[in-house]
Amino acid sequence: MGSDDTRQHIIQVGAQLILCNGFQATGINKVLDAAQVPKGSFYYYFSSKNDFGLAVIDDYARDYDQRLDETVSNPALTPLDRIRAYLEAASQDVIDCDFSKGCLIGNLGQELATQNEAFRSKLDTVFAGWERRFADCITEGQHAGEIPTDLDAAEAASLLLSGWQGAILRAKLIRSRQPLDQFQSLLFRKILTN
Amino acid sequence: MGSDDTRQHIIQVGAQLILCNGFQATGINKVLDAAQVPKGSFYYYFSSKNDFGLAVIDDYARDYDQRLDETVSNPALTPLDRIRAYLEAASQDVIDCDFSKGCLIGNLGQELATQNEAFRSKLDTVFAGWERRFADCITEGQHAGEIPTDLDAAEAASLLLSGWQGAILRAKLIRSRQPLDQFQSLLFRKILTN
Repeated sequence: MGSDDTRQHIIQVGAQLILCNGFQATGINKVLDAAQVPKGSFYYYFSSKNDFGLAVIDDYARDYDQRLDETVSNPALTPLDRIRAYLEAASQDVIDCDFSKGCLIGNLGQELATQNEAFRSKLDTVFAGWERRFADCITEGQHAGEIPTDLDAAEAASLLLSGWQGAILRAKLIRSRQPLDQFQSLLFRKILTN
Repeated sequence: MGSDDTRQHIIQVGAQLILCNGFQATGINKVLDAAQVPKGSFYYYFSSKNDFGLAVIDDYARDYDQRLDETVSNPALTPLDRIRAYLEAASQDVIDCDFSKGCLIGNLGQELATQNEAFRSKLDTVFAGWERRFADCITEGQHAGEIPTDLDAAEAASLLLSGWQGAILRAKLIRSRQPLDQFQSLLFRKILTN
């Protein structure tokens, strides 16, 4: 592998470990072991563990933007169906890993929001970007007559983001998809339609 | 202080440190230092760090039950006003600590749900108890004609819990009460009333 490929490989392996164990509990050596990269080479790729963590967030956010392109910004679907497609795919992720991982941005937000300003600021920016995309989709649905126009799109996007993050947390604790389904059910019946 | 008082004091000082820094990052010696209790006495009060953590959860849940008695189960208020009182007090907590703490049960759920079965099970039980009390309050509101009867009370209680936990996470990241207010606004206008 070239140097860029190795760096990317470390980031992806590291993301999985951080998703399972959190950032602070994920040691650099554990990441290098799992990535099968020689110990001691970490600082060739990253200036610090925080630099590595911020790179993991950037990479996750880039991947996630692609998922949002395919769902909440997919022109082949109606706005309501875009949100449905997004939440269905997001539910499937939580279920596929047997409720063991959740959302990297939510997990790190919970762990690091009050610990580290660089992380807080980056995680906030990622969430704000998702929220804006949800709001755009809701506004489109309002223009298309699919979503009630008395709804404040920014407010609904905020509830979509918050409610979904909380539902993932609850699903991890109860080890069931029920909180994800309950959130979606009310969101679609009471907020996004009349 | 008597032995029980000292144990309780360690639990309460420990809860504040865990709220700020998480469970794994909170060392036993740091707790004893902050509590001004002699080092080495920890195992007189707790059989292990996990035993201490579980006792912190029990204590927090007991205090929280009292708050729920005064809000969502307060017979002097109408059911809708009970939920309002609860969320107003809960918002104030998040704001008063300058968005630095959040909810101990949510924080530990995020950190430990997938790490430790004893913690997962206890945290799940605490959340399930809160949810049941929200559902009872919503059902009462339906009987009183204050909350629409086409609402599934268990579903609405689940959204109330999840949405609120997610809104606290978002508030900590954005360092503003806006997500808390946005969640409450939609909850009352679209879910709990028609």
